[in-house]
Amino acid sequence: MQQNDSAFIKAITQKKLDYTPVWLMRQAGRILPEYRKVRALAKDFKTLVKTPELAAEVTIQPVDILGVDAAIIFSDILVIPEAMGLNYEMEESKGPIFPNRISSLSDLLEIHIAEADELTYVLEAIKIVKKELNGRVPLIGFAGAPWTIFAYMVEGGGSKTFSKAKQMLYTQPALSHQLLEMITLSTINYLKAQIRAGTDIVQIFDSWAGILSPDQYPEFSMKYISRICDAIDEAPKIVFAKGAFFARASMNEIKCEVVGLDWNMDIRESRKLMSGKVLQGNLDPCALYGSYDSIKKETKKMLNDFGPAKHIANLGHGLYPDIEVDKVKCFIDTVKEYSATMSK
Amino acid sequence: MQQNDSAFIKAITQKKLDYTPVWLMRQAGRILPEYRKVRALAKDFKTLVKTPELAAEVTIQPVDILGVDAAIIFSDILVIPEAMGLNYEMEESKGPIFPNRISSLSDLLEIHIAEADELTYVLEAIKIVKKELNGRVPLIGFAGAPWTIFAYMVEGGGSKTFSKAKQMLYTQPALSHQLLEMITLSTINYLKAQIRAGTDIVQIFDSWAGILSPDQYPEFSMKYISRICDAIDEAPKIVFAKGAFFARASMNEIKCEVVGLDWNMDIRESRKLMSGKVLQGNLDPCALYGSYDSIKKETKKMLNDFGPAKHIANLGHGLYPDIEVDKVKCFIDTVKEYSATMSK
Repeated sequence: MQQNDSAFIKAITQKKLDYTPVWLMRQAGRILPEYRKVRALAKDFKTLVKTPELAAEVTIQPVDILGVDAAIIFSDILVIPEAMGLNYEMEESKGPIFPNRISSLSDLLEIHIAEADELTYVLEAIKIVKKELNGRVPLIGFAGAPWTIFAYMVEGGGSKTFSKAKQMLYTQPALSHQLLEMITLSTINYLKAQIRAGTDIVQIFDSWAGILSPDQYPEFSMKYISRICDAIDEAPKIVFAKGAFFARASMNEIKCEVVGLDWNMDIRESRKLMSGKVLQGNLDPCALYGSYDSIKKETKKMLNDFGPAKHIANLGHGLYPDIEVDKVKCFIDTVKEYSATMSK
Repeated sequence: MQQNDSAFIKAITQKKLDYTPVWLMRQAGRILPEYRKVRALAKDFKTLVKTPELAAEVTIQPVDILGVDAAIIFSDILVIPEAMGLNYEMEESKGPIFPNRISSLSDLLEIHIAEADELTYVLEAIKIVKKELNGRVPLIGFAGAPWTIFAYMVEGGGSKTFSKAKQMLYTQPALSHQLLEMITLSTINYLKAQIRAGTDIVQIFDSWAGILSPDQYPEFSMKYISRICDAIDEAPKIVFAKGAFFARASMNEIKCEVVGLDWNMDIRESRKLMSGKVLQGNLDPCALYGSYDSIKKETKKMLNDFGPAKHIANLGHGLYPDIEVDKVKCFIDTVKEYSATMSK
């Protein structure tokens, strides 16, 4: 059931807004003491992700505690490689590590295109959240963009340069496309199942968009994001490609309703380049380290730059874990209060 | 003594070129077996930097072995914080670590504006290099941009987000400016001394430019780079601000001859935004993982995009340590051979 009268869905459908809706990437997580309590019940991060009742609980927490206008299912973009047959381990301080990585055709033969029933735990969590939210706010589903998932699968973990992943693009472009194709088909299966389970909208995170050159991005990333957007017409789509400032004009052409901006992207310039889209973002996450006065000032400036319509307020990246909860609330309250005066 | 008839100086002074000059950021270093031999003579990385004879030797190696059109003095941008009184340790696998970091006004009272005589080891190395090069190619000196040096001094080491450094900009802007001012004055002293010792040109590396927002960049970084460029008229200046795509138009206004592009910056768009500048760059360092044919193709494409004048060929970032020497040579040879046919 879509929340058609919610601020969030109104913004996406470009209807008149009473105020600008707001949510935050990584809103469920370490900043909340309530999250840390639930987290302590699970053996590790992956157990939390794979236990539908717990994942559902931390998904709903920020709706109650912070007053955001949407929930986003608590999960990880790396559930896709795992469902494809490439396991990973997650150390909260170090990030993900893949004991095996993809480097040759024979590695591709060891993995498969993931089907929805390999990700039942996420779908179960979505069903619980939908029931418990009971229509209060819409629920966002998500997946990594194929290039970002590829980067982890080939690199074998996080990296500053992702040079193994980029090396494969230059040395084995055909193999690269085969793997990207498999990830794309897995992601389409996964997102369609998320929507069937109840998510009202889906976001595609291209976290490592910014390490590709403007020549490589259309071939190795945008093409596959576009394939996903073409395949999914059951719900609106948000695309967030961090660092891909050079791809904004072409992003305007793909079949998604919303494009996320990082904090390096000038708002007014982005409006011109993507006039067809609702824009999401883009306060510098570090702005929430500032004083309350400074947060209010920066938030109002952002709202003025976006204007009163076609905007979903958010940060330009995920919330950092050491931000104070009251500072996050200050951001959210300022968005709601100040934008209500703009929309009049 | 400037090498006025060298390809490098001709490019900077916008004279007619026989071919496009080429050098590489991090050309002296781990890719060369000859470097690793000298490195093994020194106890650690910092000892290598601080021993003029050894630093000079590794500076000259790429001129002999790779055939680059300029040498760049082997050193580290963090010699400035150290000369200011903030020591660091360098672990080659982990990067720099500062046992003490700057977080308050009382920390500022513990450091001072560096004078040239606190960096004698760099100046000695420059003198040896100049003598040994004997006019073969020009020598580049360098320093970090004040914002980048600030980021390390406040963060206490490398970081993905530099959130402590960015936090200070939001919470203590006056203190931030005081520290940036001290770094700027130290850097001016240092670069002037490098030029007196014999460098023909200086490059300013703003490695962490890209984590500032378009609003913050002019105030906390560009202003101080501009101050340095205004203060130094003894030699031409190159500014390389990685990730600051949003600052290109204003970069055209500052007093430097050359602007470096990273591999995310579209060449033709950058030409339009910085029509007054010689441009340097910008092949994706990962392109050198490709086959010889692929390297030649990518290099020729880059040269065509820059055109036959006002260009110094380079990568869009430092050379990665696991690139094969013959692949680097292929890039350099292709630049020289192909650009010679373009310039006719």
